[in-house]
Amino acid sequence: MAQADPAVEKVLGRIDADLDASLERLFEWLKIPSISTDPAYAQECRSAAEWLRRELADLGFEAQLSETGGHPVVLGRAEGKGKPHLLFYGHYDVQPVDPLELWDSPPFEPKLATLPDGRKVIRARGACDDKGQVMTFIEACRAWKAATGELPIGMTVLIEGAEEDGSKFLPEWVEANRGELEADLVAVCDTGMWDPNTPMITTGLRGLVYEEVVVTCADRDLHSGAFGGAARNPIHVLARIIADLHDADGRIAIPGFYDGVPETPPDVLEQWRQLELTPEKFLGQVGLSVPAGERDRMVIEQIQSRPTCDANGIVGGYTGVGSKTVIASQASAKISFRLVGHQDPGKISAAFQAFVRERIPADCSVEFVKHKGSRAIQLPYDMPALAKAKAALSQEWGREAVTLGTGGSIPIIGDFQRLLGLDSLLVGFGLDDDRLHSPNEKYDLRSFHKGTRSWARILKALAA
Amino acid sequence: MAQADPAVEKVLGRIDADLDASLERLFEWLKIPSISTDPAYAQECRSAAEWLRRELADLGFEAQLSETGGHPVVLGRAEGKGKPHLLFYGHYDVQPVDPLELWDSPPFEPKLATLPDGRKVIRARGACDDKGQVMTFIEACRAWKAATGELPIGMTVLIEGAEEDGSKFLPEWVEANRGELEADLVAVCDTGMWDPNTPMITTGLRGLVYEEVVVTCADRDLHSGAFGGAARNPIHVLARIIADLHDADGRIAIPGFYDGVPETPPDVLEQWRQLELTPEKFLGQVGLSVPAGERDRMVIEQIQSRPTCDANGIVGGYTGVGSKTVIASQASAKISFRLVGHQDPGKISAAFQAFVRERIPADCSVEFVKHKGSRAIQLPYDMPALAKAKAALSQEWGREAVTLGTGGSIPIIGDFQRLLGLDSLLVGFGLDDDRLHSPNEKYDLRSFHKGTRSWARILKALAA
Repeated sequence: MAQADPAVEKVLGRIDADLDASLERLFEWLKIPSISTDPAYAQECRSAAEWLRRELADLGFEAQLSETGGHPVVLGRAEGKGKPHLLFYGHYDVQPVDPLELWDSPPFEPKLATLPDGRKVIRARGACDDKGQVMTFIEACRAWKAATGELPIGMTVLIEGAEEDGSKFLPEWVEANRGELEADLVAVCDTGMWDPNTPMITTGLRGLVYEEVVVTCADRDLHSGAFGGAARNPIHVLARIIADLHDADGRIAIPGFYDGVPETPPDVLEQWRQLELTPEKFLGQVGLSVPAGERDRMVIEQIQSRPTCDANGIVGGYTGVGSKTVIASQASAKISFRLVGHQDPGKISAAFQAFVRERIPADCSVEFVKHKGSRAIQLPYDMPALAKAKAALSQEWGREAVTLGTGGSIPIIGDFQRLLGLDSLLVGFGLDDDRLHSPNEKYDLRSFHKGTRSWARILKALAA
Repeated sequence: MAQADPAVEKVLGRIDADLDASLERLFEWLKIPSISTDPAYAQECRSAAEWLRRELADLGFEAQLSETGGHPVVLGRAEGKGKPHLLFYGHYDVQPVDPLELWDSPPFEPKLATLPDGRKVIRARGACDDKGQVMTFIEACRAWKAATGELPIGMTVLIEGAEEDGSKFLPEWVEANRGELEADLVAVCDTGMWDPNTPMITTGLRGLVYEEVVVTCADRDLHSGAFGGAARNPIHVLARIIADLHDADGRIAIPGFYDGVPETPPDVLEQWRQLELTPEKFLGQVGLSVPAGERDRMVIEQIQSRPTCDANGIVGGYTGVGSKTVIASQASAKISFRLVGHQDPGKISAAFQAFVRERIPADCSVEFVKHKGSRAIQLPYDMPALAKAKAALSQEWGREAVTLGTGGSIPIIGDFQRLLGLDSLLVGFGLDDDRLHSPNEKYDLRSFHKGTRSWARILKALAA
């Protein structure tokens, strides 16, 4: 363990003393329903951005909203005592909240709740993803300013409003604003811990291809009594397509899909084996027990080193109460792929669309709605910042931090590499049971509190 | 052609003169949104029943609402000049109207519209199924009373309110009210014409099994980035089930499904062949061209003598605007079967549920919501009433009426056979393009007008 640094100790004391007030600030932000994918919430997104801009300005940042083709970006800059200059990235937008009836409390009325095992949690949409995580960084900066009058390093804070919508307009905005974004390193707080007691730095991220498929058969809804048996049913066409996506061994059956997927080196596989992530341990927490992916792969491979395919939504025909004997004219599904290694989002998308078209009967048609794709990312294991952040995290949590890839996708990380030449330090305090994108999303109070303390330590460690 | 009957001529004249007023009455009834499957419309169903009760009372019927476990039955009785005593059955409930945005005019604001080919049609939910069809009979009775002061035969009118919900409570009500329902013959107006110029008497009806399947995997919605690849996706489970329901030749793959399905005799098949119902002719009217059913069967077999299976609705995961990377906890589908011959609804339902259970992974679960089933019906070709009605129809339309089975299901017809020992005369004036159960349901003005005239003739023919 490193020796105690008096300045850091003072900052940590300030964080502890300020916890209630910092929670109140977070709750204010969580109350703003900044759902980026639904156009009805555009004004709320802007309010959430403006709320954060004011917070940054209060902390002495030069802060502004910067327009994009979609929701605005919050951009703040503050000088600090030393180098490196850090570019901190996060997002103020949140996922939709349906089905609303499954929430134990309204998603935009944040509250402290106690889980059956005694853990105190912050429950709200965005509690973890990403408002809670962003605020661990902001509150760490606030504590540094309050306790020492300055930040240990200079920084630019960039918080966008469309991460949950694939960061649609961000790459072009980054390209247009390169001058404002000069830095030595990116830091991101949008990832998770290894387990509730073990911090983690994420060194790899899966890419994403998200497709929407609309199948049309007859030119109107039909009565199944009159037309059933002769007329093609788009739900059956779509079901066949989705069923065909995986073979009996859990492999994805689209030709060429595995092009560019690397095999994990044996020594890394051995390390993973030692983490003992059994199906019971990983799936048991959500009521499952049988791994659904490739049969010859460990669960830890299925969720982080292998590409995946999931239907995220499907709808067609009559879905109300009771029965209706209709053959729908249309049915649609949202289908996404997580990519690894060098899989090319453009090629995957084209191969998927060809795979679908082959399964559309001659008298039916298909339309595709394209959402943004991103490549997988692998960060260098030898970044100097990685070792420093790892030491700081290990000190806060009293346990060595794990460095590992993860299953999720943060598309913009690849753009930072490509457009700014910057690698990213991915530190986050989410837990597997945080119910991201689900009803009752939460963030452990301990994640919030020790996450803030962690950033306070990391800022100092990076400056050293 | 039979000789003109002066009484009938007088009645037909009255119908022609009264057409506008009869349309106004029908429109009044169509304005009441009597959707039986949605509990929110229970009061509207009762209003539709009460509206008809008043109409019958005005025509001199002894008319009442009679309670069932669901929506009330309208029951009216009138004496007539002669025998047989007729039991007329129809329904005042209608199908749901979604998707509402596809209607050219509001479904419960009936209007006369003109199709591109010049046909005048009544557009509204229920315009054909079954309010428009019921009113052809009621208006024929009204004309007989107005023109001659009496009805040619005695009759009991039974109009129920849950046909679109599988006539859930009607069989027990019929059983409990046998005394009120004594008659010689049932007549029903809920079927169609062969084509716009050729009347038809339906002599067979397919049965129905309607199942709702709810598949549950994880105990909550999951983030596909965190759990994708390892966690089972209920949309994939359901897609596999639906895809497996048919084999590559269009046959239904549930073991035992074809038990009790008779082969159509060669001479009947030959008659059907001569009707020349090509795929282009039948499917072309709804924008399709490739028959989807069993490959070795003619379209006319696929739609009337062969059993079928259709997914009538499916929903799961995120179905809103934009993208959401969720793995749903649940997905559900409504799946129905049309039965023929001696297929047993109970056995089909059990075989289907076993077929589904076999495809549910060990750590997932399935629930079934059962809707009512009914056997297929075949009516005797040698009913005396059949020949009489056929002659009357042929006279009105100037073309010989076709007698044929049909693809739809009217469950209560079997109950009338079983509980009352009565066969049914199924005469209706619907057309294939009436968009039953779909947006823009319509009833040709000619169907309504000549349908009313047809019943006026049939009532007299039955009395002869």
